[in-house]
Amino acid sequence: MRIAILGAGDMGTALATPTADGGHDVRLWGTAYDSAVVDALRVGAPHPRLGTPLPAGARVFAVDELGPALAGVEVVVLGVTSYAIGPVLNAVGDKLRGVSAILTVAKGFDESDDGRIRPLTDLIAERVPAAVVGIGGPSKANEVARRRPTAVLFASSDAAILRICHDAFETEVYRVGTTPDLIGVEVAAAMKNAYAIALGIADGLQIATGMPHHNLRAALFPMAVREMGRLAGGIGGDPETVSGPAGAGDLQVTITAGRNRILGELIGTGVPAEEAVRSLTSADTTIEGYAAAKAGYRLATSLSGAGVTADYPLLSALSAILLDRAPVFDTLWAAVG
Amino acid sequence: MRIAILGAGDMGTALATPTADGGHDVRLWGTAYDSAVVDALRVGAPHPRLGTPLPAGARVFAVDELGPALAGVEVVVLGVTSYAIGPVLNAVGDKLRGVSAILTVAKGFDESDDGRIRPLTDLIAERVPAAVVGIGGPSKANEVARRRPTAVLFASSDAAILRICHDAFETEVYRVGTTPDLIGVEVAAAMKNAYAIALGIADGLQIATGMPHHNLRAALFPMAVREMGRLAGGIGGDPETVSGPAGAGDLQVTITAGRNRILGELIGTGVPAEEAVRSLTSADTTIEGYAAAKAGYRLATSLSGAGVTADYPLLSALSAILLDRAPVFDTLWAAVG
Repeated sequence: MRIAILGAGDMGTALATPTADGGHDVRLWGTAYDSAVVDALRVGAPHPRLGTPLPAGARVFAVDELGPALAGVEVVVLGVTSYAIGPVLNAVGDKLRGVSAILTVAKGFDESDDGRIRPLTDLIAERVPAAVVGIGGPSKANEVARRRPTAVLFASSDAAILRICHDAFETEVYRVGTTPDLIGVEVAAAMKNAYAIALGIADGLQIATGMPHHNLRAALFPMAVREMGRLAGGIGGDPETVSGPAGAGDLQVTITAGRNRILGELIGTGVPAEEAVRSLTSADTTIEGYAAAKAGYRLATSLSGAGVTADYPLLSALSAILLDRAPVFDTLWAAVG
Repeated sequence: MRIAILGAGDMGTALATPTADGGHDVRLWGTAYDSAVVDALRVGAPHPRLGTPLPAGARVFAVDELGPALAGVEVVVLGVTSYAIGPVLNAVGDKLRGVSAILTVAKGFDESDDGRIRPLTDLIAERVPAAVVGIGGPSKANEVARRRPTAVLFASSDAAILRICHDAFETEVYRVGTTPDLIGVEVAAAMKNAYAIALGIADGLQIATGMPHHNLRAALFPMAVREMGRLAGGIGGDPETVSGPAGAGDLQVTITAGRNRILGELIGTGVPAEEAVRSLTSADTTIEGYAAAKAGYRLATSLSGAGVTADYPLLSALSAILLDRAPVFDTLWAAVG
């Protein structure tokens, strides 16, 4: 099978490993932000952040080689962050004819023209002619690239496409479960980044006070999972999905490492939220959980109205901390109630 | 209110803090194993393991002062590990007349005379005339003793007693939720220790290979929660309880620190299970998760028969690793399947 991965970021590049290991013709295309990555991988050097070279069987394509990268391709992986989805789809244009499935690693929400907050996969489905497959589950890119055991969840309403993608991507060390609940997986995938900020605040309180706040962090964990389920259910997903790998599992790994957790940690140590966000954001890096918290809170409000604080106490507290300069510990602890 | 805490171990002693802060007359009684603790606390020194002295309002009683410790007491906390429940109840004898509630921090299973595996609270209820209250939720003792924010869950079928205990124990930093689902809380409280061994194995694989296994650990997390729910439901509890603080929340904190996680870590680095268990066990310390894994697996088998591997894949793998010298990584990873 010919598989193109669009975006040579960490997760896009990491997915070259299971697909190349599966014997497929894998093309990794770098965006304008990936030129240093492309240069490195092209000469067999490691990916600058992942630390691993491209696996045998995968080839790398530069930003001006999108046409050749997509030629004859049957499956496309959108390997860019949520902010780059629009520009990359613009660049791709009508080159996706013949593609049957488009998988996405981007996590977040889109605001549709009528102001509705929806999973990014809705936007993608609107713009491409292929079946959309969401990827959820705990999956740190550096471990995927190094063939460490990883179990993910592919989600699509198209059962036949789901089977094809499962068979194409699964290896001995990259297990692919499947679910028809695309909404549940996408809500969990987006919101786990937001909730990781909240749980990261407990890590920051540990730094600020010199004393672990593990009990607090653990108390927030099931609240986060419950609220993710409520949000998913509110827009037509299965609330149970978040109890599995895409919700609880992915949140578990997201609070172990990554920028969302670090944002929370900074805030927990006393750095004002807007300053912490600014310090972690640059031209080509964003904090997906910050955007997800904002969009998720708006979505929760649209579902709950005046009851949003009761229905989503943790998300409401997080939103107040991130956007309204609410006192950090008091606001978070009041949410535990 | 007069409250006696039986056992001056970490958690028993820690509970002197919220109760003394609540203005109660708190008596902490040390068992024969606690004489060094009693001696230290009596002169105002810190608890040797917790690192904190007894809070104002709490008094300490030595092993031969059980009578005075229990005089006029209305609420008793059983602050000993599962192995010590029987001996302590023997020592207490008929001194619990007038006690309306007995709370227990011990986590585990008991085998009744007819060979049935049951929560320890069933054994306690059989032997004491008071209402039994289980304590669940993420609650590291050192944080409770230091008044770090902690949210727990009290469980009892007796709603009036539950209310009394809630009011007696809750403080600004020690939040007490309540549930009638004693079985669900007790199964989760016992089994989270067992599953923490399984997740700890991923930490050991990191040490053994020099490479994080966070994806694996996170993949195991929702499996553990799901199996705890199935087990609770199988003996009359509410499977949903495990999604909350007593299941997912407590598992979250248990995989952060503690002996159960360390047992898994040792096994993950390649130490044979029986040797790892031996190295962590001594006269007055036990690994509650090891006993819970054995009893839990027997309970799961009694509920599932030949289908135990399908219904409880992670617990089955853990049991095979702990008891049957099954190859560690292959067995664990096959369970994710």
